[in-house]
Amino acid sequence: MFEWITKRRKSATVPVVKTRTESAPRGTRVDLADMSPDLVSYLGQVAYFELAVFESLTRAISSAPSLGSKEGLTAAAGEVLAKHHGVVAELRALKVDPAAEMLPFAPAIDRFEKLSHGRDWFEMLLGVYLTAGFLDDFFIRLLAGLPTDVAKRLEVLLEPDRSAEVIVAELKAGIEADEKLASRLALWGRRLVGDTQLVARSALQMSGNRATDEERIEPVFTDLIAAHTRRMDGLGLTA
Amino acid sequence: MFEWITKRRKSATVPVVKTRTESAPRGTRVDLADMSPDLVSYLGQVAYFELAVFESLTRAISSAPSLGSKEGLTAAAGEVLAKHHGVVAELRALKVDPAAEMLPFAPAIDRFEKLSHGRDWFEMLLGVYLTAGFLDDFFIRLLAGLPTDVAKRLEVLLEPDRSAEVIVAELKAGIEADEKLASRLALWGRRLVGDTQLVARSALQMSGNRATDEERIEPVFTDLIAAHTRRMDGLGLTA
Repeated sequence: MFEWITKRRKSATVPVVKTRTESAPRGTRVDLADMSPDLVSYLGQVAYFELAVFESLTRAISSAPSLGSKEGLTAAAGEVLAKHHGVVAELRALKVDPAAEMLPFAPAIDRFEKLSHGRDWFEMLLGVYLTAGFLDDFFIRLLAGLPTDVAKRLEVLLEPDRSAEVIVAELKAGIEADEKLASRLALWGRRLVGDTQLVARSALQMSGNRATDEERIEPVFTDLIAAHTRRMDGLGLTA
Repeated sequence: MFEWITKRRKSATVPVVKTRTESAPRGTRVDLADMSPDLVSYLGQVAYFELAVFESLTRAISSAPSLGSKEGLTAAAGEVLAKHHGVVAELRALKVDPAAEMLPFAPAIDRFEKLSHGRDWFEMLLGVYLTAGFLDDFFIRLLAGLPTDVAKRLEVLLEPDRSAEVIVAELKAGIEADEKLASRLALWGRRLVGDTQLVARSALQMSGNRATDEERIEPVFTDLIAAHTRRMDGLGLTA
């Protein structure tokens, strides 16, 4: 298992960096550096978020319709747990108590987690896939404002959509077997992206000047929504 | 996280081997080799058992009374998930479908898992700790009947009580804060050991000669129960 993760990780940075470079409009720097929270707050929030994603996945594992699906999802759960433990290790290295630093972010993320839970197993899976993909991507954009060494480690650690192929395969199989599911999931995906953006915004340190803030945020969110649309497209869903 | 697991693993084999050698009565060989199921059945059963332990732990994580407890238990969940994935990798190496090989063992283990679930968070934790400790230990005893190379890998992988110190600390803190809990948990622990032995017995290939079988099983179960008693003692509970 560990070699497998290491192998995946090694090949992990490339697409992330690529996306960022490719999608930055010419001459504009897509940078949220001066809107990043302080390092400890950042780590506390990301650690709690990954823990919440892990818990969502374990619920999807417990209620999986078949043993094959259950077994497949454990790989994704392992990857998310590794993200959580990686961020917790950064907090420990700073000699702070991970639980204490996660605590302030628990209510908002729990509320969001409840909202994105979905009404059945497929909505649950789509919820995890889309919100974790979007927010991992978003948290990576904030790394520019953090110390370089930590930022480098976290960029590899937080790679979006790692192990998501299992989830994508389950969703595709479900959509193929039931054509009504596609329109229901498309609707659900469109609803999720709104709430997810609110969570991302709440993590930003706003300057107080609304116009300047929006000008800075807008190109990044355009990128993140483009990635969201690609995830929806990949499932054959209209974003 | 990974270096940490690797480090723990490296120091893992010694106590297991020691216990086995020490506790074998002089002149008797504590050996269940010819009662071992075939390799694929063995792996299917162990893989499903570790998956069930993981699911129990994720329930304990979701219902943890504090964020500190929740965070602590994720380490134990990661270790159990690594056991599950390690056994699944052995099944894949044999070119069989892990889910198909786990399936025959699902009903019995699910039934056992429900029985050992407990009525509250502390009983849930004690249930995971005692049954996983006992059965990991038992499954290691069956390795003598399997091919040497696989047996060697699994002996390291299945080390009982790895990461259990988090669970032990939670249980001790609970017992200290509520004296009634100790007697309730002692009762629960005594009940669990009976059901756990039945699960272990069901994994054995009996020869049909009851007297011979019992003669062979008895010293092993004496060892396993002694380890169970040490776990109970360590918590200050009367076994």
